[in-house]
Amino acid sequence: MARNKHPEETVNLILDVAFQLFMEKGYEHTSIQDIINHLGGLSKGAIYHHFKSKEDIIAAVIDRMTEESNQMLAKVRDRDDLTGKEKLKAIFKESILRPVQEDIFTVAPNFSNSPRLLFCIFRETMDEAAPDYILPIIRQGISDGSIQTDYPEELTELVMLAANIWMNPMIFDDTVEESYRKFMVFRQMMEGFGLDIVDEELLDRLQELAFIYQKNR
Amino acid sequence: MARNKHPEETVNLILDVAFQLFMEKGYEHTSIQDIINHLGGLSKGAIYHHFKSKEDIIAAVIDRMTEESNQMLAKVRDRDDLTGKEKLKAIFKESILRPVQEDIFTVAPNFSNSPRLLFCIFRETMDEAAPDYILPIIRQGISDGSIQTDYPEELTELVMLAANIWMNPMIFDDTVEESYRKFMVFRQMMEGFGLDIVDEELLDRLQELAFIYQKNR
Repeated sequence: MARNKHPEETVNLILDVAFQLFMEKGYEHTSIQDIINHLGGLSKGAIYHHFKSKEDIIAAVIDRMTEESNQMLAKVRDRDDLTGKEKLKAIFKESILRPVQEDIFTVAPNFSNSPRLLFCIFRETMDEAAPDYILPIIRQGISDGSIQTDYPEELTELVMLAANIWMNPMIFDDTVEESYRKFMVFRQMMEGFGLDIVDEELLDRLQELAFIYQKNR
Repeated sequence: MARNKHPEETVNLILDVAFQLFMEKGYEHTSIQDIINHLGGLSKGAIYHHFKSKEDIIAAVIDRMTEESNQMLAKVRDRDDLTGKEKLKAIFKESILRPVQEDIFTVAPNFSNSPRLLFCIFRETMDEAAPDYILPIIRQGISDGSIQTDYPEELTELVMLAANIWMNPMIFDDTVEESYRKFMVFRQMMEGFGLDIVDEELLDRLQELAFIYQKNR
């Protein structure tokens, strides 16, 4: 493969191989050398040309998985048969139920030693997911009367911080039991904002993902 | 100064000088070389023996400031004339009103490029401040009937994540106006948990700290 001619193909090949190895051996037990060994002659220089570290690679792997499924979220956001509040419920459900989550939680690293990776998820949540998917839905809810708030940006941020960071079992290394307890507190918070949109189906899925993560650590 | 004999004095000297420079020139405009230049003959090796980077130094500076004032927080926690809910209100107030906050917000760096520093504050909040100060108070509140929750650990975590991370103007680079809007959403969240403990005095102080931070950026 002529890497200078097709850098995108090279990147995709690296990510394919890395994803496969993370799934098989786990993130912590995969070295950059392992990835190189499976790249069929691609040099160490070639991989470091695209990625500075293993953390960079997992960030890109997760990015790619997220990108594919974001189209699904955009579809929910752009439907015209639901109120803002109904869309918020639907997007929470779509987001956590999508099958790619199982892969994400299987390859996920131990975050407690990955400040840069945590930072990257944090930024993605606050600077991209929040304004791109949740804020437009909350704004619609204000217009159609299904959501009450004078501070849509801030409500969006706080909900996303709680849902995507705090309730994420792979970030806080939560057990199934801890996920249950967080869910109960999160539901009370949402109801305090008049957002009675989280149900048992979400809880079950959250606990399932916590289980997958703990099993693969 | 014989650094091997009195490592603690050396560390304190480095922190004193660094703090002074951060206050005068700002964190971003102070280099490690500046700090060395003001250390009166201490070698580059000596400083790197104790700190790997400028981020390490500011983390230690903030740590030292926090440590001093944590005794104040322990005092509130250990009073025997207040209910749990009253203590929670008192500790929020003491915490944000303490004068050291002005220094912290003056020397604070721009967090958006400091993943490790954010991670360090994040860990300090969730692993130390939450269990050491807030959790015992919430537990007392459950016992004395002033606070209602079945999930004290999780309520503590969520409140601390919102109050100490999300509402921290230096972490999210908030303007005075943004701090106001976050405060309003935070107050609604707290009331949803039956915790009507945040008032105008807190809001004023929060906006004051946001102002100090923005002025010194």
